[in-house]
Amino acid sequence: MNDSLTYRDAGVDLDAADRAKRSLGPLLDAAADANTLSGLGAFGGLYAVPRDLAEPVLVSSADGVGTKLKVAFLTGRHDTVGRDLVNHCVNDILVQGARPLFFLDYLATGEMDEGVVSQVVGGVAAACRRNACALLGGETAQMPDFYAPGEYDLAGFVVGVVERARLVDGSAVRPGDRLVGVRSSGLHTNGFTLARTIVFDRMGLSVDDGFPGEDASAGEVLLRVHRSYLAPVWPLLERGRVRAMAHVTGGGIAGNLPRVLPAGLGARVDRGSWRVPNVFRRLAEGGGVSPAEMYRVFNMGVGMILVVSPADEAEVLGELGDEAWGMGEVVNGEGVELFGGE
Amino acid sequence: MNDSLTYRDAGVDLDAADRAKRSLGPLLDAAADANTLSGLGAFGGLYAVPRDLAEPVLVSSADGVGTKLKVAFLTGRHDTVGRDLVNHCVNDILVQGARPLFFLDYLATGEMDEGVVSQVVGGVAAACRRNACALLGGETAQMPDFYAPGEYDLAGFVVGVVERARLVDGSAVRPGDRLVGVRSSGLHTNGFTLARTIVFDRMGLSVDDGFPGEDASAGEVLLRVHRSYLAPVWPLLERGRVRAMAHVTGGGIAGNLPRVLPAGLGARVDRGSWRVPNVFRRLAEGGGVSPAEMYRVFNMGVGMILVVSPADEAEVLGELGDEAWGMGEVVNGEGVELFGGE
Repeated sequence: MNDSLTYRDAGVDLDAADRAKRSLGPLLDAAADANTLSGLGAFGGLYAVPRDLAEPVLVSSADGVGTKLKVAFLTGRHDTVGRDLVNHCVNDILVQGARPLFFLDYLATGEMDEGVVSQVVGGVAAACRRNACALLGGETAQMPDFYAPGEYDLAGFVVGVVERARLVDGSAVRPGDRLVGVRSSGLHTNGFTLARTIVFDRMGLSVDDGFPGEDASAGEVLLRVHRSYLAPVWPLLERGRVRAMAHVTGGGIAGNLPRVLPAGLGARVDRGSWRVPNVFRRLAEGGGVSPAEMYRVFNMGVGMILVVSPADEAEVLGELGDEAWGMGEVVNGEGVELFGGE
Repeated sequence: MNDSLTYRDAGVDLDAADRAKRSLGPLLDAAADANTLSGLGAFGGLYAVPRDLAEPVLVSSADGVGTKLKVAFLTGRHDTVGRDLVNHCVNDILVQGARPLFFLDYLATGEMDEGVVSQVVGGVAAACRRNACALLGGETAQMPDFYAPGEYDLAGFVVGVVERARLVDGSAVRPGDRLVGVRSSGLHTNGFTLARTIVFDRMGLSVDDGFPGEDASAGEVLLRVHRSYLAPVWPLLERGRVRAMAHVTGGGIAGNLPRVLPAGLGARVDRGSWRVPNVFRRLAEGGGVSPAEMYRVFNMGVGMILVVSPADEAEVLGELGDEAWGMGEVVNGEGVELFGGE
């Protein structure tokens, strides 16, 4: 009978889903480690708790890529957003002193384009390897009539571990402690709804147009990968040099730094201590965005802030090199005061 | 200057996001347990590894709710999909013998409707409590021009734990072992793209219309909550009565049971051993869907399959009561043969 329905008629292709899943197998295998006990096809991913910790505490975080994905759709480049996602999640647990153990992703699409799925998950797997993190599994969902053709959403979830006695929880922070800024690689994954409006609508650029003041296209500038701070910061954590750490995401410096300071302590940040990168200056200008709003939405060049004792500041700055600088101090009070600069 | 842009002009309301986040605090607190070390606002959620296990293995799974969400949008009822999500994830790690420790959710919306966010996350938190699982955190993303007004996507991640020696990995399965089916509560969270096409387009029902053969509306029938098998199955796992277990999700019985059987073993399932519930019979009829396609897309009334030794079958059936039945056996070979029935 010709009006008989199949799942495929309704828009879901189980065979394409199976093929896409199988093609992900080698990616998972390549991103496994000695504690990974399961392979593709298991209902849950298995991971042995590392045995070298006296009192292991799991640290976990979930995140998405937000509308930075729209830039990937416009450029047709899908191998960077997975790296954004993993690095963002890794940074979110790093600030509590944890190293990543494993990661899972959620990828939802309208139609199952195997090439795109493979690029996206390939980016996730590559970033997992660089962060010494197992890619334990994930979900790839086909949701026709939910996502526009060629679009998808991507979220992820990391689990890391820290020795309980070495948790970085801000309790050691004292007035007079120094703030060390570590540079960001660009917009990271925040503020893209505003950034896209400015770049595409106000500045009238397409993704292939050159971005003013950069030797790169607008698409390349916007897609610059959210960096992971695991490699530069980990040695300092192992030596106990970090009293608190904030990942500068949505809400900016003033929205994130107070999250890691004890009650009764605030911070003074000298905006004149670093030069705001070109991309942020162009966005402010192109959108007529006030400095206050810029600092609330974007990282403005500061991806991570470390709180260290005055005695350790020189060592920390020496270890981090050119990409870090002293940007202020912890004070009695509440909140963050931004002073100086533009 | 009147063309000056803010984040809010571009469609993202950080204040609404802050309010929505704060309103979630009590939900997280209510779904915390003695091992939860962090509260709302921390970058990562903290969870102490339980100390009563000699060799703890973490078991993790990511999942979404799929286009069952569309039924929530149509009915305006948002407190059930979070329960679907948590229960689905809990079942996915239960089949490997794990009990859940903690859960994180990812909720992406176009506009931030605080009432809807609170209903959705309320459902997540309620299901976490019922599964004795901490709600450790999550991400609520505002993605205007990504999701249609009133729509959202919802995904989640669970982490559970199992003693390594008690992992349920199918290695103990032998030919002649018995298959015990445990009833589903409805469609669970699979096949909704097909089910919605049939119910709304072919059968011409609206969500408020009565569903044929049921004392409930079409919306109620479709939204019936994916049940968790943790409570009924856990005592059997603790007594070591389960050799393998399959959660019947996308792909149906034949797509999921082989995932937990060792190489060289298959299964014979007697379709005459249970009565397929009304909702599946109406969908088959309404869509002219072949039995083969129905069994590939839907659970057909079987939510979970336990593989048990012949000596344990009576005990297992006695413990599970009316909701379980003997449905077949493990045989030499590969794959699943469905015989008998319609």
